[in-house]
Amino acid sequence: MPVLLDPDRAPPLSELLKAIPGGLVQKLVPGAERWSDPRIAGLGSLVTASAAEISFIVHPKYLDQLARTGACAVIVLPEIEDGIAAMPHPPPFARVVCKHPYLLYARLAQWFDWARQPARDTVVHPSAVVDATAVLAPNVTVGPLAVIGARTRIDAMTQIGAGCVIGADVEIGNSSIIHARVTMYDGVKIGARAIIHSGVVLGADGFGFAPDSSLAKGAWGKIPQLGSLVIGNDVEIGANTTIDRGALEDTIIEDGVKLDNQIMIGHNCHIGAHTAMAGCVGIAGSTKIGARCTVGGAAGVAGHLTIGDDIHISGGTAVTYNLTKPGRYTGVFPMTEHADWQRNAAVIGQLATIRKRVRALERE
Amino acid sequence: MPVLLDPDRAPPLSELLKAIPGGLVQKLVPGAERWSDPRIAGLGSLVTASAAEISFIVHPKYLDQLARTGACAVIVLPEIEDGIAAMPHPPPFARVVCKHPYLLYARLAQWFDWARQPARDTVVHPSAVVDATAVLAPNVTVGPLAVIGARTRIDAMTQIGAGCVIGADVEIGNSSIIHARVTMYDGVKIGARAIIHSGVVLGADGFGFAPDSSLAKGAWGKIPQLGSLVIGNDVEIGANTTIDRGALEDTIIEDGVKLDNQIMIGHNCHIGAHTAMAGCVGIAGSTKIGARCTVGGAAGVAGHLTIGDDIHISGGTAVTYNLTKPGRYTGVFPMTEHADWQRNAAVIGQLATIRKRVRALERE
Amino acid sequence: MPVLLDPDRAPPLSELLKAIPGGLVQKLVPGAERWSDPRIAGLGSLVTASAAEISFIVHPKYLDQLARTGACAVIVLPEIEDGIAAMPHPPPFARVVCKHPYLLYARLAQWFDWARQPARDTVVHPSAVVDATAVLAPNVTVGPLAVIGARTRIDAMTQIGAGCVIGADVEIGNSSIIHARVTMYDGVKIGARAIIHSGVVLGADGFGFAPDSSLAKGAWGKIPQLGSLVIGNDVEIGANTTIDRGALEDTIIEDGVKLDNQIMIGHNCHIGAHTAMAGCVGIAGSTKIGARCTVGGAAGVAGHLTIGDDIHISGGTAVTYNLTKPGRYTGVFPMTEHADWQRNAAVIGQLATIRKRVRALERE
Repeated sequence: MPVLLDPDRAPPLSELLKAIPGGLVQKLVPGAERWSDPRIAGLGSLVTASAAEISFIVHPKYLDQLARTGACAVIVLPEIEDGIAAMPHPPPFARVVCKHPYLLYARLAQWFDWARQPARDTVVHPSAVVDATAVLAPNVTVGPLAVIGARTRIDAMTQIGAGCVIGADVEIGNSSIIHARVTMYDGVKIGARAIIHSGVVLGADGFGFAPDSSLAKGAWGKIPQLGSLVIGNDVEIGANTTIDRGALEDTIIEDGVKLDNQIMIGHNCHIGAHTAMAGCVGIAGSTKIGARCTVGGAAGVAGHLTIGDDIHISGGTAVTYNLTKPGRYTGVFPMTEHADWQRNAAVIGQLATIRKRVRALERE
Repeated sequence: MPVLLDPDRAPPLSELLKAIPGGLVQKLVPGAERWSDPRIAGLGSLVTASAAEISFIVHPKYLDQLARTGACAVIVLPEIEDGIAAMPHPPPFARVVCKHPYLLYARLAQWFDWARQPARDTVVHPSAVVDATAVLAPNVTVGPLAVIGARTRIDAMTQIGAGCVIGADVEIGNSSIIHARVTMYDGVKIGARAIIHSGVVLGADGFGFAPDSSLAKGAWGKIPQLGSLVIGNDVEIGANTTIDRGALEDTIIEDGVKLDNQIMIGHNCHIGAHTAMAGCVGIAGSTKIGARCTVGGAAGVAGHLTIGDDIHISGGTAVTYNLTKPGRYTGVFPMTEHADWQRNAAVIGQLATIRKRVRALERE
Repeated sequence: MPVLLDPDRAPPLSELLKAIPGGLVQKLVPGAERWSDPRIAGLGSLVTASAAEISFIVHPKYLDQLARTGACAVIVLPEIEDGIAAMPHPPPFARVVCKHPYLLYARLAQWFDWARQPARDTVVHPSAVVDATAVLAPNVTVGPLAVIGARTRIDAMTQIGAGCVIGADVEIGNSSIIHARVTMYDGVKIGARAIIHSGVVLGADGFGFAPDSSLAKGAWGKIPQLGSLVIGNDVEIGANTTIDRGALEDTIIEDGVKLDNQIMIGHNCHIGAHTAMAGCVGIAGSTKIGARCTVGGAAGVAGHLTIGDDIHISGGTAVTYNLTKPGRYTGVFPMTEHADWQRNAAVIGQLATIRKRVRALERE
């Protein structure tokens, strides 16, 4: 079940909005009677919100849901508020008028996420194994059974979750949240305000081998990975994602990059600022991706490529050449009923011949 | 090597069958001489089974293998037993006649899996860190160096493996097996008889961001994930699979769902009862999948879709629209030798033109 | 930043080459003046190497970069050295002449990787939980908070990382490096000189279920996985990769196999010697892959197939039938701008019809 604060901890709407930064609110329209300034215990969608919750409408196509919502307050676009204000019998909920309702929702959710956190002791749990030469700034929290290596430096306010293994010579910036069971190899560097989810492995060896037939026919000799991994500020990394260290130079993730779960980023990659990737994406080694790109789920980018800024890759697409022109790129075999697929897929192997036959017909 | 019980612990076939629930056995036909009621130390395939093992045949196409098997007993379909009984010199192994030999094999394997388990002390290992407010029912086992959070409730007979990190306010039903190094975030709920494999991460944040240019051009503001993750009874989850918590409501996995390794299920998804997914599948956020579906390996389903009951997705397929009609759906580029692929793939970019040219030819 | 040894620990080039096995060096040509036998503190690419580093050139197409390199020494092909020796004013760096510069680079990187390692105490960390019946050979290292099960045998010189969970009856060969937070289920066997990265799960249950409608409509009954997992010598396995145990017999990984991150190998698979797979590959259950194959990133192989020796699968390809003829195989939908993709993909569903129409035109 979603968050619902106890009634006595739920702030009145007017107080709650004062706590949200950014000047997003244009106007607060009181609701009817007991909802003139209702106490807000949580956030819900229009369909599921209860009378203790605030909701939001991002597009007029949801006006139907708005008409039936049980929420005591709703974040609305100015044009929607105009429509409501013109009604002879306006609905009873309070309205928060705002040009960016989705962003205001995000910030309210941040407030509730903060409000629901239990008070944490900013301590190093006695079961954690922290090297004597590690340097922990004030207010760093280290969870039970975490391991922190030699000479590692962790900046103020950062939380290290239970069971993490942080190697030697690692640096983690301030106010970061490293969830339980994250692994960082020696020498990895991460900026401030990172959020790293469980199961993430940062700085493991890249996949580098040289054919070495002196060992055996077809054998591979390991190329040790002497570079490291450097991650900027405000980066979030989803559960079980892996980012490898560089072969000679460092793998680099710039500020504001957002990575979903189970993403794999190979050695020597360079990911530009504010680029976002959905789950299960794979980026092969030595590829450079620009700023503000998006990569859809399970898409892949081949190695040694350069992808420019503001490029959007559709989910499931395999990128096999450089891209410089901003825009959206796609390559996915369309799904159909299996029998139809069989019939049409059988023709794929004859396409070159069919093209030739069409040319021949045209020449006749 | 497979399981082989010590000879003195191996039960006679007739005793073993009495221990299997379900009335699956139609008839037990004694083998020749010393195999009239042989002791069964383990289970093997027709090709590899030794004289101490029982095997099974699920289809007449394996009669060749049956003729040469070394097993002392074989589970057979009634029609195969009819053939054997009609032989002038039937083979020496005992036969267990059964209409569902694969299911009987599964149940025998369950018995041997149970029989090979070493006796476990039902204790909380002294190195585990269990919060004082956690509630552990009788006969709960907690492995070495596991962590269990505040107010978490674990029901009777459940085993928590070594190195697990179970958050606060988690609930786990009875008779579940949580293997080593599983992570559950705060508030996750799981039913009875779950099997969760190592490296699984349950209830990490979904991938939710709102564009927030107040931070930087192209920057993303985090949307905290206030929902949770609720999993039904009899669910098995493979190694390193991740299931995210919901944004506002809960992500839901219904009873009997079976997930293989390295699957990724996004926030707000709803997976119907007895649906099974093979390895490396990705389900994007807010998608609803019905009951009794199967999803082949490395297939993907886009976000915000609705997939009905009894729908079967082939491996490698990208599902990009809603599906209501039961059946099998496919979309995979057929593999060929590379040179052939190059020749034919080059035509893909001209398909619309070729269609036009064919139309023009038809009009001539 | 990459490795750079302190100046007093950096060996002269002539000494360094004596430490590299294999007789790969044909000739050492002294550089100008102070670079006649320079001290080598690290390895760098032609573009980034400093005056304290050695670099390498693997192909004449990089002669431009060679002309501008800041390295004090460079590994060069004989034909490149011929060109340099013929220059009126040869560049100042020393040259190491070698027919296999990439392999020599790999071996130098191995030397630097060894040289940068801090001295390790070969001890079992007091926080590790090692079963009293486990057998650890001399010079085995066990990291903090690792768990080692009953009767497990670990051979000489092997390192077990922090937070690993090694089950009961496991065997690990000599000189292996098991990085932090690896999980091995009971009974897994691994040969000598393995390198296993963080988050790897070895020997979890394969995905085996029998339809069992006695439980519920569409329900699945678990088939316990009674086989194990056997891995040869010189195998490297990347972060968060999972390899399942067998159903009845063992899953087998032969000598010299190299697996990148986030690979999934199903139960009963058999992977031949020196086969290498890039990240995110999935191999479904009971498939046999030959020796010296390569599988590109995110490719998949369906279950119950046989793939011969020396077969190369392109990244992103779905293999759905047996392959015996050595060569390269591909099946990937080519990526284009999204609008082009839409136009052409729409024709895929009409290919069978178009073929028919072309035939009809030809008959006219």
